[in-house]
Amino acid sequence: MDFAEVKKSSRQIFAGKIIKVRVDTVELPNGREAARECVEHPGAVAVIARDDQDRVCMVRQYRYPVGEMLWEIPAGKLSPGEDPLECARRELLEETGITAATWEKLYCYYTTPGFTDEVMHLYLATGLIRGDNQPDEDEFLDVEMFPYPEACAMMRRGEIKDGKTLIALLHLGQRE
Amino acid sequence: MDFAEVKKSSRQIFAGKIIKVRVDTVELPNGREAARECVEHPGAVAVIARDDQDRVCMVRQYRYPVGEMLWEIPAGKLSPGEDPLECARRELLEETGITAATWEKLYCYYTTPGFTDEVMHLYLATGLIRGDNQPDEDEFLDVEMFPYPEACAMMRRGEIKDGKTLIALLHLGQRE
Repeated sequence: MDFAEVKKSSRQIFAGKIIKVRVDTVELPNGREAARECVEHPGAVAVIARDDQDRVCMVRQYRYPVGEMLWEIPAGKLSPGEDPLECARRELLEETGITAATWEKLYCYYTTPGFTDEVMHLYLATGLIRGDNQPDEDEFLDVEMFPYPEACAMMRRGEIKDGKTLIALLHLGQRE
Repeated sequence: MDFAEVKKSSRQIFAGKIIKVRVDTVELPNGREAARECVEHPGAVAVIARDDQDRVCMVRQYRYPVGEMLWEIPAGKLSPGEDPLECARRELLEETGITAATWEKLYCYYTTPGFTDEVMHLYLATGLIRGDNQPDEDEFLDVEMFPYPEACAMMRRGEIKDGKTLIALLHLGQRE
């Protein structure tokens, strides 16, 4: 069945540095109208970097919208026109100092498609070479390598509160 | 280390039916100031319902912000003050007609903490009893039970594009 909603009109609410917000009026499949609040986002990348000792890299940083320090896999927003893999290499190097020989795309998914178009490109990086990280001047984070079983224990204890990090850790734990 | 960012001022941009948007000025750990674009969301629930034949329930619906029909596990927004488990029971029943004898909370996580406070409460429901669904008047969706291996094959083919659904399916596939 075709359940598509057809745009009747669109009103821009906000154009920020990162997000844009608009409210569209749409026609539903039953002919009625409804409002749709949409947050436009440039998209993002995330990387689970696993070394030869089955350790994974996570960074801990303050996330202002939720008011908490979170352990997450390295990630960052796409610049306009940027290739997701290049962005992933750059973010991993900047945040952690790691370069990786092998990159595998795991998933490309919508973080929360009910209200935003944000796409997440998730990669697995292996064959790691560690160096010094180069965080942005206004970026503050701890970097740590966790044995994979320890990361899983954190997940079971509810200490991993970030969606992309759950996907990445669970992916590595799949039955073969 | 304490990397907390301290709010200096806050400006409300938009108060919609579902989301609110504000831009805060914060003081960084290095004393500099930065702007933070925040989308406030009431929070949500999602349910992976697995039956005795190892089939899982997914619904297919049009997601206007991304302009696509997506296969997702049943989910919905929290009403103000609503208990997440009660919300999960209600959404599962309304969207799919299923009631479940056993509920287990799997994860409570932020969908995308860089710009929104949206929390997702994810449940596993088992001991299923199927009935007729009761979608909202303006809700249009297909409901289907997928053998778990088939859902995993969809995931591997990139046909599952929703973050919460990836987390739920991957969780069920963990090594014991």
